[in-house]
Parts: sequence; C-alpha cells; structure tokens
Amino acid sequence: MIDGLEVLPVRGIGDVTAGDDLAALITTNAPWLRDGDVLVVTSKIVSKAEGRLVEVPADGPEREAAREAALASQTRRVVARRGPTAIVQTHQGFVMAAAGIDASNVDKTHLVLLPADPDASARALHAALAARGLRVGVIVSDTMGRAWRNGLTDVALGAAGIEPFRDHRGEIDPYGNELELTQMAVIDELAAAGELVKGKCDQVPVAVVRGYPGAGTAGTPGAVALLRDAASDMFSLGTAEARADGLRAAATLPTGTTGTTADRAAAVARARALVAGVIAEGTLIDAGQPGVLTCAPPAATAAALMRFGADLHRLRAALAAEGLSSAVAYTDAGATVTIGGETPA
Amino acid sequence: MIDGLEVLPVRGIGDVTAGDDLAALITTNAPWLRDGDVLVVTSKIVSKAEGRLVEVPADGPEREAAREAALASQTRRVVARRGPTAIVQTHQGFVMAAAGIDASNVDKTHLVLLPADPDASARALHAALAARGLRVGVIVSDTMGRAWRNGLTDVALGAAGIEPFRDHRGEIDPYGNELELTQMAVIDELAAAGELVKGKCDQVPVAVVRGYPGAGTAGTPGAVALLRDAASDMFSLGTAEARADGLRAAATLPTGTTGTTADRAAAVARARALVAGVIAEGTLIDAGQPGVLTCAPPAATAAALMRFGADLHRLRAALAAEGLSSAVAYTDAGATVTIGGETPA
Repeated sequence: MIDGLEVLPVRGIGDVTAGDDLAALITTNAPWLRDGDVLVVTSKIVSKAEGRLVEVPADGPEREAAREAALASQTRRVVARRGPTAIVQTHQGFVMAAAGIDASNVDKTHLVLLPADPDASARALHAALAARGLRVGVIVSDTMGRAWRNGLTDVALGAAGIEPFRDHRGEIDPYGNELELTQMAVIDELAAAGELVKGKCDQVPVAVVRGYPGAGTAGTPGAVALLRDAASDMFSLGTAEARADGLRAAATLPTGTTGTTADRAAAVARARALVAGVIAEGTLIDAGQPGVLTCAPPAATAAALMRFGADLHRLRAALAAEGLSSAVAYTDAGATVTIGGETPA
Repeated sequence: MIDGLEVLPVRGIGDVTAGDDLAALITTNAPWLRDGDVLVVTSKIVSKAEGRLVEVPADGPEREAAREAALASQTRRVVARRGPTAIVQTHQGFVMAAAGIDASNVDKTHLVLLPADPDASARALHAALAARGLRVGVIVSDTMGRAWRNGLTDVALGAAGIEPFRDHRGEIDPYGNELELTQMAVIDELAAAGELVKGKCDQVPVAVVRGYPGAGTAGTPGAVALLRDAASDMFSLGTAEARADGLRAAATLPTGTTGTTADRAAAVARARALVAGVIAEGTLIDAGQPGVLTCAPPAATAAALMRFGADLHRLRAALAAEGLSSAVAYTDAGATVTIGGETPA
C-alpha cells in the first residue's frame, strides 16, 4: 500500500562528457536526495560519461555510411526492416529501432551508443551513491517504440537497487481468485513516470521518484530480467521477415517426416482437406499404410508431369503451413507422399 | 518544464457494480481532486459500471468453453497463438492477450470484458466530472503485455481531456539538432505512473497524477490515436503465424508477374543466384527476353519430370521470398519461367 509518489526533475546537470562523475553531478544538483528515492537516469548521459560515442561526418553520404556501420556494430540480429527503419536486437539484448543509436543531444560529429552494459552502469552509479551515504534505486532509461502502439515510452535498460518486477502471482483478490499472470515490470513504469518530468531538449536527464517502497537495497537482478529471449518471444521476427522465412522454407522443405504412425494416419485426413485447394482431387490414393498416399500418374506428357510435380510440392508447402512434415518419392509409375505427424508447436 | 508530479491513490471506492456513478464514487473518495489533475481509472471498474460482464460457470470444462466463446466474441483477428496463450486484436483495435478479458477482481461466475469504447467511457467520465465543476484529464487504463520484454505495464485504453502525445518533432536540442521521431505516448506513461500506486488486490482502482500540464480541456483525440493499424505495423502477426502464412503462400503462388521489363532483366541475375541452392544449374537458359528463362527439359522419365516440376516451384518460392513474382509455363519441350520485378516493400 503506497501513500503516493512524487516525481521530481533534477535540473542543472548540463552537458556531460566522457569521464564525468555522474554521482557527483547528480548529488550536487539534487542535494535533496534521500534514501529510498529512485533515480531515473537517461541512458544518454550514462553513455556520454562512459565515452560511448562514435565520431561521424556531420553530413553527406559519408555520415549515412558511418551511421550504418555504427548500427551494424551494435546489432546482434535484424528483427524487422521497412524502408529506412531497422528494428534490431542489440548485443545487450534490447529490441530497438536503430539499435538505440541517437544523434540528438550530441554535437553533429558524434553518435551516442547505448551503454555497453546498462545494468553494470546502474550498479556502478548505485555503488558510487552508496559510497556517498545515499541508498537509492537507480534506473538507466531510454526511449523505445513498441509493437502495435504509436508513440514512444521510456523503459528501463539497466537497474540496480530496485526489484525489476512486482509479482502479484499467488495473491488472492477480494473475490477469492488467485492471480496468475500478473508480474508488473515496475522499473519500466518508473522509467515512464520519470520521463514525464524530463524534456528531450531542456537538459533534464535525471528524474527522481520518491515514495516507491523498497528501493535502495543492492543485489537486485537488474533490467536484464526484462529481456525476453527470441525463442520464447512470439514476435521474434517482423511479419514480413517471417513470411519471407516461410517462403524460403518452402523452397527447401526438408524431406524427413516426424511423428508417430498414429499421428500420420490422422494427418492424411488433414492432407485430403488441403488437397482441394492445391491439387486435383482423385490423384491421391490411400496406400493403405498410415500417412502414405500414392499419387496416380497424371497424363504422361512432359508438361503434365512437370505440373504435377509442382502441385505435389504445393501440397507439401500447404502441409508444412499446418505443421505437417512430408516426404515425396517419385517413380516412373507415379509418386508417393509420406505425411508426418504434427510438429509439436 | 514541469516542477514535479504527485501520483496519489484514491482509496475507498470499494466494489463497483453495473449502473454505479463513477464520477460520484471518485469525487466522494477523493474530495481533494483539483482542476488539471489526471485521473487514471482502471478499466475494470469502468467495465463493471457499464455492465460489461459475461456470466460463466465457476469451474469445469463448461467454464473453459464459455471463456473461449467470450474470447471469440471480442476478437477481430488472432495475432498469435502459442499453447494456451492467444494474442488477439480486439474489436476496439487493442492487441492483447485473451482480448483483455479478465477473471480477477470479479466473482467466479463472471468474466469482465473491456469497455466497448474506452475513449467514449473516458469522455463520459470527463463530462460527468466537468458537470461537477471539475476539469480533469481522464485515462482508462489496463495492464498489457509487450513484445520482446517480460512483465506487464499499464497503458491507456481510453482518454479524454488530455493530449495522448507530447510531440517533440521539430524541437531543436542544445546542439542544434532537430528532433525527428520523438512523439511520446504520454497517456501510456501516465497510466504506468498511476499503476505504481495501485494494487491488484487491494482495491485502489483509481490514481491521480497531479502537476502534469495541460490536462482538463475537452476535445482531445483519445487513446485511439495510439492504435497502430495492422497495415503499418511491422509486427501485425506472430512469427510462427507469419511463417505459416509464407508456407501457405508458397502453396498457392499467384502466377502473374509484376514490375517493368527493366526490373525483370535485373531480376534474372538474382534468380540465377538463387538457383544454386534450389535447382541444378545449367537447366535454366536465358531466353534472350528480359526476365524470361527457358528451362531445358531434364531426362524424359516421368520421375525426373515430376522432380523438375517440383524444383521449378521451389525456385518460385525462393523468388517470392525475395519479393520477386514469377510465372511458369510448361510445354512438352521444357518450361519457361518469367520473373517479375521486385514487389515494392
């Protein structure tokens, strides 16, 4: 139960350059800081203090090339690309447009990269403030786009001295229902709250959230806990990229089958349902073995045989779209399609 | 330039039922509200006051069936599905797990749907408070998951009396750079800030953000401005769904070609680069027309002709993955593949 929060801007920090002592800058400009406060620090000043800048030409095609090179250097994998916009996963694991590289609030001959390890940056600042006797939470924040929603919000790239989640799982609501899935990403919400009192151009790179319980203790997991790995992410690739991946997969369908014999028997029924839209019904004959269809040879002209071969491949692509693997064997007497069971999702 | 914000919980609202007057409940429990405050109201109490509940059995398979039926009724399209988790776009346009249908904080025989039109709900509450002489911003919020990041945050489903965006585009930073892409979704950030003082089980369904400039004026666009339509969303489908879509597309490749003759000439070079992985080099012969390849007839056995037909379809799928359309014509003397220009992204 929280009584209320205050969200306060820290003004006067001014320009930050490589080697600057952020703990000193912050405490000088916010002498009113207290134990338990949460500092929301814009990643840009962290990057600048850490010297995470690359030199680029001020304009022209050379600038664009240098920018592309910087992007490539920060990219683990491209997630989606449309026109000039590249959404990538950075080496740190963030999915961000342009790898979070920014040309604002820096002179025209530099680009600002994200901190190399924002959790480490947060821990270092947390420790430096602790050394000054101040036990606060530290969030290193940045502005990020989202899928499905217009506009940007600030989120946490790094954190120290504050739990990244508030976990409601297992709590019982007033109606006796146990909460199941509610794990709140509070450091992202704190970063968002902090953003509301910052400006983009008016040099308020730090906000303080006062009144949020539990902040200040070391040993918390860091913002890395918020990163969902690609394997468990249902949106690990852009839609166009994943569609192209599917088409590419259709060009190189593997020929093995998976699944048990029982699976395969059931699969034939599904295959027959797919046939209608793909190949002429009547050409597929149940071979009497689970999951095996023999295909009557079509008219024996070269054109008809090539078309039939293409149609069988269409069928296999349609099966693959339903998660069904298949193999095909061609003989001069016709073809045999073996359909695998459903691939586990 | 903001001096600072306060985020305050509104306690004592208690259970809300259909027909309740939210303006009365809120002003009674927060007599300290002032002009310019932003109210962040959990969508659940809006739904309850509006009677947006469906009756369901308390347990058993019938409950699950009723839940599925409720989900279907709220779904415009399925975005992604994995195991029991369905991410859908609702009729309102939100992309949310289970269409935002919730079984918490309601008795076991009901599910709570989202408000039918959260912007209208926000406008109604804004107007009802204005009628009481109180000019505030109203945000109807809910808890949502995100792509790429673990944990949930609160966002705005509806808004009235507050601009959804703070637009930094065109501002000049202290280094003379013009900001380009920075349009902040402030109502989402306000919703997130509000969430920090709410509980999931302790009946704090309303928070107040005090000190945020500009709140209270009617005629703002509403949270609908935050909805990105599927066509302009790079993540309109789950990765697995989009991959399956690509495989399905390979099963039914259209046979028309697009692009100019010049495009098609360039495309042949790309097609040749793809050939290596797909069909035996040497069987594709440049026909001397832009974008047209003739294909030498393979060995004239039925098996070889079917396999070659399948290989040509593989090639077409590989071309499609690169955005290149194609058509194929089979003759007893071989096949002709016409390759279209690149489809505009």
